[in-house]
Amino acid sequence: MTTTETVLPDWLARCAQHFPSHLALQYGPTRWTFSDLEQQVTRLALQLASAGVGEGSRIALLAASGLQYVTCVHALTRLGAILVPLNTRLSQQELCWQVGDVRASLLVHDEQYAPVAAQIVRAVPELVCATLADHAQDAELVLRALPLASVPLRAFIDLAATQVIMYTSGTTGQPKGVIITYGMQWWSAIGSALNLGHSPDDCWLACMPLFHIGGLAILMRSVIYGISIILQEKFDALAVNRAICEERVTIISVVAVMLQRMLAELDERGMAHYPTSLRCVLLGGGPAPLPLLEECARRNVPVVQTYGLTESCSQAVTLAPTDSLRKLGSAGRPLLPVQLRIMQDERPDLPAPIGEPGVIYLKGPNITPGYVDRPEATAQAIKDGWLSTGDIGYLDEDGYLYVLDRRSDLIISGGENVYPAQIEAVLLAHPDVEEAGACGIPDQQWGQVPIAFVRLRARSTASSDDLFSFATQRLARYKLPRAIYIVDALPRNGAGKLVRRDLPRLLPF
Amino acid sequence: MTTTETVLPDWLARCAQHFPSHLALQYGPTRWTFSDLEQQVTRLALQLASAGVGEGSRIALLAASGLQYVTCVHALTRLGAILVPLNTRLSQQELCWQVGDVRASLLVHDEQYAPVAAQIVRAVPELVCATLADHAQDAELVLRALPLASVPLRAFIDLAATQVIMYTSGTTGQPKGVIITYGMQWWSAIGSALNLGHSPDDCWLACMPLFHIGGLAILMRSVIYGISIILQEKFDALAVNRAICEERVTIISVVAVMLQRMLAELDERGMAHYPTSLRCVLLGGGPAPLPLLEECARRNVPVVQTYGLTESCSQAVTLAPTDSLRKLGSAGRPLLPVQLRIMQDERPDLPAPIGEPGVIYLKGPNITPGYVDRPEATAQAIKDGWLSTGDIGYLDEDGYLYVLDRRSDLIISGGENVYPAQIEAVLLAHPDVEEAGACGIPDQQWGQVPIAFVRLRARSTASSDDLFSFATQRLARYKLPRAIYIVDALPRNGAGKLVRRDLPRLLPF
Repeated sequence: MTTTETVLPDWLARCAQHFPSHLALQYGPTRWTFSDLEQQVTRLALQLASAGVGEGSRIALLAASGLQYVTCVHALTRLGAILVPLNTRLSQQELCWQVGDVRASLLVHDEQYAPVAAQIVRAVPELVCATLADHAQDAELVLRALPLASVPLRAFIDLAATQVIMYTSGTTGQPKGVIITYGMQWWSAIGSALNLGHSPDDCWLACMPLFHIGGLAILMRSVIYGISIILQEKFDALAVNRAICEERVTIISVVAVMLQRMLAELDERGMAHYPTSLRCVLLGGGPAPLPLLEECARRNVPVVQTYGLTESCSQAVTLAPTDSLRKLGSAGRPLLPVQLRIMQDERPDLPAPIGEPGVIYLKGPNITPGYVDRPEATAQAIKDGWLSTGDIGYLDEDGYLYVLDRRSDLIISGGENVYPAQIEAVLLAHPDVEEAGACGIPDQQWGQVPIAFVRLRARSTASSDDLFSFATQRLARYKLPRAIYIVDALPRNGAGKLVRRDLPRLLPF
Repeated sequence: MTTTETVLPDWLARCAQHFPSHLALQYGPTRWTFSDLEQQVTRLALQLASAGVGEGSRIALLAASGLQYVTCVHALTRLGAILVPLNTRLSQQELCWQVGDVRASLLVHDEQYAPVAAQIVRAVPELVCATLADHAQDAELVLRALPLASVPLRAFIDLAATQVIMYTSGTTGQPKGVIITYGMQWWSAIGSALNLGHSPDDCWLACMPLFHIGGLAILMRSVIYGISIILQEKFDALAVNRAICEERVTIISVVAVMLQRMLAELDERGMAHYPTSLRCVLLGGGPAPLPLLEECARRNVPVVQTYGLTESCSQAVTLAPTDSLRKLGSAGRPLLPVQLRIMQDERPDLPAPIGEPGVIYLKGPNITPGYVDRPEATAQAIKDGWLSTGDIGYLDEDGYLYVLDRRSDLIISGGENVYPAQIEAVLLAHPDVEEAGACGIPDQQWGQVPIAFVRLRARSTASSDDLFSFATQRLARYKLPRAIYIVDALPRNGAGKLVRRDLPRLLPF
């Protein structure tokens, strides 16, 4: 096998050159053409350069979804710097650990997250921070009080270069930084376009967090395809439905809980259907409830189920629109660049027979080369190019994937991954806790919510409330157990390993 | 810059697996699904394997556009063999030279070209040949009298591997084999889809020769995109118009002379417009006459002008549909993977100013790595990744390319490239010819036709007819000068170089 290197003209710069007056980004009342976006990006890049940002700099970004966020993502590309998007829902402790672990040299934040950023910088002394100006108030300056450097900006993108380090916990519960290259974004975007079709008139609604791959990937598709995006800071069913009905949105990415609320909101307004301009509702973030899919089929909502993860740069397996009814409940088939196989859980060297569940493995140019600065974790997860997702699924006789569990123990709450191992680690850090176990239970609104069980040390008098206060300081809100139960023993198998699936049996009701 | 290697699941096999019952290919009354095509390809590949075809084998293909042609193209991919498509319009002498130059190990041909193939094999003793069976008569055997080998077929495509060696004469007039990799096909197809849009329901009409890149690229797009093609053996305006009007063709590739005939045929039937299902008429093969473009604009024919060459694997610069009126006459802008620059003709190290003509250079992953077995020609044409096309053009202030001349001296006759240097070389081989010069003159039907001028040796009595008979045996019909004039002197510049553009002044009228 020979090797090739592939360098492409910078995606945004090309759009600004070829489609200068095409709408790039709409956010609230603001509409930026590709030319507008390019100007903002150039200015921010030159300011960041004067702050010392250059090739390989790791820049943490803590900001709400908005114009500044998008500008910053593209500006880092022009400098060859690496974006480390921070999950704004994390606790301060989690954030401090992450910027330290990645050795970020600069923390860029917006006004809204200035207080949190100040706390982080106090806790991590080697870190400096820079404030993104609110464009509405301060149109001339993107970064507060920083001059424009006079450095050449990059005009090309090397597909092999790292664009982003995005933290995810994986099966172990220990957060790790996934390396996301420009090539992964490219191949994911192309695989998606070949599957869903592509029109230069597409308009993609982004209402998912941009610090997750599902949101960030939309920003990349915009400049790769040269299409418009409508960005909303937070998911709001009414705002989403308005955009779909009034703004000619053609594609939207959602998770199940969002889609449920969108349909409910549509009902409240007495509308049965979306306009036909909406051609694709890309539904990710874990297995979707069958009743929801059936309702969408009844109402002609063009749902396209998809399965992907941070390590696969969003979509890896997607149900073609033409199969959405025939294969209801399936995540579909691998996108063009992707290879998929299901291996037996106990014998990972043997493929699982058709229809039998096993572990999902993925390979292809949209799969991460590994975890930053963690060669052992990389070697464990990726062998011969095959990524073990840890997720469980099976293939039907036509080769369609059905995902049964996003990692046997993973809790997915409102589309967010919650790792039992992380909750357990926090509880075990409490001096009175001897053993801890966490799992998810069904929840009408969020799909699942986490709960936890602990066994206290002998003679301990800690209460459930004490433990809850302890966890509150250390865990993001959405990871916080709905309840913490004190029990006499946790279910363990013969080898002494915690059997999380048996935890719900300990519930007192 | 780091390097990456990219391997994709075999394009056709993937289509057969994912869209088995989708129409792949319609030819006359025959309709093959992707599953049908896959079966035919598998069988032919196993037969070719039993004839010794394997990795890197160079296989010459001499056949009419049809089911067998398509089958053979894909079958060679399964064996890692290299396709050398022969231009069926070449003279026997030209064909013999080409199969010898490329060191083809096997000549595959259909029934129609069996007599020509037999002559070639007699002239090139180390060559063996194999006959493609007529499917209509002999559905069970693809290759006459060859068993199926039991070898594993390739399931993957390495983008860096050579798919095709396609001969082109370039500026020198000496034919050279252009290396066409799978990656070039891939990037060309993706660049085209991002520009034109892509729908899984597209149907591409192929009525251009498959031995040229413009035709062959359609076969590749079909399996990369997973779309249908309608294949017609020869261009026939009535058949093309019928397919567009009755068969839901969405895209067609043509050269100007074809489009003129299509419109004339439409007029004959009293039709003003094509149905709106036809969304793109991709117009290549040299600068288009402005009156034709204006007529298309009047009649709402969705013409998309394009500029490309064998070395760029078809389209490299294409006018976006939205610009077709605003930039009438322009070939458009580079497709996403392509870089373009115009350098001064006399000072190739200096860019030509905006609006000033110069030589067109191209760079990108769809550009050939070079000419097979000709390192000097490769080094001369490609420097630092930049291919000198030899074509002349300029960029307007918005960066749109206007092509003035397909290589200053190149003659384009009915979409076929005719190289003056080759005509001259043939005439100079005649014992009575001292000097020769060839050029094109305008022609109502073909755009241009070649004519030639010769100065005879002293005391020679050869007539124009003698020279014409001599050339007839050595040149393809379409390259044959319409007239050969005997003159006293040829126009030469100070350095003694033939000035071909002054040749028409020697015309006796």
